[in-house]
Amino acid sequence: MPRITTQAMAALTREQLPFAEIFGFQVETLGPGSATARAPYSNEFLRPGGTISGPVMMSLADYAMYAAVLTRIGVVELAVTTNLNINFLRRPEPGDLLARAHIIKLGRRLAVGEVELLIEGNDEMVAHVTSTYSIPPRSD
Amino acid sequence: MPRITTQAMAALTREQLPFAEIFGFQVETLGPGSATARAPYSNEFLRPGGTISGPVMMSLADYAMYAAVLTRIGVVELAVTTNLNINFLRRPEPGDLLARAHIIKLGRRLAVGEVELLIEGNDEMVAHVTSTYSIPPRSD
Amino acid sequence: MPRITTQAMAALTREQLPFAEIFGFQVETLGPGSATARAPYSNEFLRPGGTISGPVMMSLADYAMYAAVLTRIGVVELAVTTNLNINFLRRPEPGDLLARAHIIKLGRRLAVGEVELLIEGNDEMVAHVTSTYSIPPRSD
Amino acid sequence: MPRITTQAMAALTREQLPFAEIFGFQVETLGPGSATARAPYSNEFLRPGGTISGPVMMSLADYAMYAAVLTRIGVVELAVTTNLNINFLRRPEPGDLLARAHIIKLGRRLAVGEVELLIEGNDEMVAHVTSTYSIPPRSD
Repeated sequence: MPRITTQAMAALTREQLPFAEIFGFQVETLGPGSATARAPYSNEFLRPGGTISGPVMMSLADYAMYAAVLTRIGVVELAVTTNLNINFLRRPEPGDLLARAHIIKLGRRLAVGEVELLIEGNDEMVAHVTSTYSIPPRSD
Repeated sequence: MPRITTQAMAALTREQLPFAEIFGFQVETLGPGSATARAPYSNEFLRPGGTISGPVMMSLADYAMYAAVLTRIGVVELAVTTNLNINFLRRPEPGDLLARAHIIKLGRRLAVGEVELLIEGNDEMVAHVTSTYSIPPRSD
Repeated sequence: MPRITTQAMAALTREQLPFAEIFGFQVETLGPGSATARAPYSNEFLRPGGTISGPVMMSLADYAMYAAVLTRIGVVELAVTTNLNINFLRRPEPGDLLARAHIIKLGRRLAVGEVELLIEGNDEMVAHVTSTYSIPPRSD
Repeated sequence: MPRITTQAMAALTREQLPFAEIFGFQVETLGPGSATARAPYSNEFLRPGGTISGPVMMSLADYAMYAAVLTRIGVVELAVTTNLNINFLRRPEPGDLLARAHIIKLGRRLAVGEVELLIEGNDEMVAHVTSTYSIPPRSD
């Protein structure tokens, strides 16, 4: 069972992740080691050419990955990204952006995961992310 | 000589990069193949633990790199990031965030660059980025 | 149908990829946009601690990805890697190393793929790779 | 002062890094947090098109980075790469390959560094690497 609920994640976003809050990022589903997040479409996401900008994709991916990590370790606020690698695959047409994250390895010190980014209603991945979170030493 | 001015970059940001505009990103200096950008500090940048969030760093790095690419190819709006890799090195204390980008290889189809992220007044790099931009075929 | 056979890939390895040949790399299966490669175990693969070294994993991943790209574009020798990102997940115990590559996006200029590395007989991924190949302009 | 000598690194290579030994990798200079390594040219390094293959570059970069890490932490054999990202910039013509590594951040748990790859006699970088090493907990 996930060690954090969507409600707790919404509260954490509201109170401590202003960047995500401003852009309306929401966690939709959480599983053990997985999370799906949504960025409801906004004109503010556009870049020259009328497609969704890279920073929005990177930000949502990082947010989804954070949620996926918390499903495994609970609300450890100081878990931080140490590395993120993104490949942009297709120019995303305007629409809600979805990020599906899952952990591929959870170690004592590092968690590595993968995130797929899609536009709702279109099966083709628009970007692919791998990232690593550093997990603080646990006192227990 | 750079093929874009800071004025032209400011106009492009205002008109076509709402994401960067909202966060107050500014290009400060441009050289041939290089750019420095600033994100004036805002509480909205914080993440749990009171340090600046990863998405802000990734976004500013991508913005600085875009400017550095345009100094070489001119205002080619459809130049797009294909890959970005970031290593987070230190938790950045609240302060203005600076991104110093430079191109390490400009080919016909791809430009590869490196970005250093720092907090103003502190010499220690807080994050290091490499990224690749795809350059559209030129009609000339 | 794949545009290259395992026999053609074996011949290409023997004749033009001495690095892969020395280490006994073999392509085992090819599908449209996918390839599985094997590095039969050798003591030469070890690193301090008695596990398989990172360079062997990176090399086999790159080889498998090359094969996966050729299944889509045919024998285009000058397809070259432009970016490779690897996350090492677990220390691989001595054994045959397997790399399962598949293309996640094939564009006109770039192909992006993902490779899973495993030790035969163990389901846990030991490393995860994403990489990008540049495809030369086609004369057709 | 570096915490490992070139002699100790040569012995470690001979005894415990057969992969590097087979290809003749040598550490040439060591500084505090930096290392230069060489791969004397061999026909075995070639790939289709007659340039030096990606795996040779990745392997030498990883080797140079390992040496750079050891200059700071001493001979800690179990330091292992957790992430490596390489951008290939130019096709390297046959010649001795040089890798210049330096640490950009040494933390308690992770070391992050950068490696430039060049062909001797040519100033243009042929590939650029960033990588992260995990440092085992110290008993002291």
